[in-house]
Amino acid sequence: MKDKNISVAVIRRLPKYHRYLKELLDRDIRRISSKELSKIIGFTASQIRQDLNNFGGFGQQGYGYNVEDLYQEISKILGLTRNYNVVIVGAGNLGQALANYTSFGRLGFDLKAIFDINPKFRGFKVNDVDVLDMDNFETFIEENAVEIVYICTSRNGAQDVADRVQKTKVKAIWNFAPIDLKVNEDVIVENVHLIDNLLTLSYFLKENQ
Amino acid sequence: MKDKNISVAVIRRLPKYHRYLKELLDRDIRRISSKELSKIIGFTASQIRQDLNNFGGFGQQGYGYNVEDLYQEISKILGLTRNYNVVIVGAGNLGQALANYTSFGRLGFDLKAIFDINPKFRGFKVNDVDVLDMDNFETFIEENAVEIVYICTSRNGAQDVADRVQKTKVKAIWNFAPIDLKVNEDVIVENVHLIDNLLTLSYFLKENQ
Repeated sequence: MKDKNISVAVIRRLPKYHRYLKELLDRDIRRISSKELSKIIGFTASQIRQDLNNFGGFGQQGYGYNVEDLYQEISKILGLTRNYNVVIVGAGNLGQALANYTSFGRLGFDLKAIFDINPKFRGFKVNDVDVLDMDNFETFIEENAVEIVYICTSRNGAQDVADRVQKTKVKAIWNFAPIDLKVNEDVIVENVHLIDNLLTLSYFLKENQ
Repeated sequence: MKDKNISVAVIRRLPKYHRYLKELLDRDIRRISSKELSKIIGFTASQIRQDLNNFGGFGQQGYGYNVEDLYQEISKILGLTRNYNVVIVGAGNLGQALANYTSFGRLGFDLKAIFDINPKFRGFKVNDVDVLDMDNFETFIEENAVEIVYICTSRNGAQDVADRVQKTKVKAIWNFAPIDLKVNEDVIVENVHLIDNLLTLSYFLKENQ
């Protein structure tokens, strides 16, 4: 299924809808109006109606949204109807933090291994997942049908990892290193540039003083 | 200095300019045209001229931008002309990862302590910074003129921390817990919602297949 006409801005709001709808389901709330949803999620009701209209009309006049249906539909749009095999490269604190997030696994992101070039991690396990050296990286990726690589190395190591990833069939990189990776056009990179976030915070702090 | 008329979209691009200009300075490059800058940073030249025009015309026809001046100006806009005392709450892997990022300190974010309610961290140090219990949190914040709190707790603990932060003079929270914190209007929250990033990645992966 292709949703080519949906803007990136809308796509980036979908995980938040997904998160809140899950909470509603956990609280056994079965239907909700755009107005009520607006109160808990913080977007305006008109924004919500506009966003959700992108995926066909789930909302019914006078009834609101069926929470379960909407949750399932957004899950489908986000590609969450199947599992993804993933590996982490970089077994430092950040890599270990990601390996320990059980919520990723619950959403279908199955961690298969953690890689690190540092011999001090040999034989190490994090959350029951092995830390391996990089020698057989490409073979492991192929044999385990890995689809996403989380890069948690230092700035210096990240491009090398990206280069090796590109020799495999992996088309998605989640990059935490403070560098913009150079990759082929068919490889998707989602960056978490922590410093960029922190500097946005210092900007707003300065502005408010 | 207030820059109220600058859009949030522009502000969010500034840290990237800041990062690349620093690299140019490190390579001893003293001036650059918007066209050359475009090649390395990935924004269009016209986007760059438009963005930077927000802060007064640093670019000169036929000369380009003075890298040092532009870097200093953007540093100023981002509030980087002074230091900020910060603390981390949550001494798990993620909190430790942040404590170990030396680049934050180099930019002027001085880590004063790490707090954790778990007694197993008593007496622990990360990157030479003490892990403290939460008993004297508010006093510590006041005595050390802390201005930013990084919340690295679990989902369950985060709102409690935010409530305690709001009893202090701190007006900025960097939140890594997968929850949208409820705070007073005068408190700035910058969220790093990792799951939202990951789901954006799975969306694009699905779309490209």
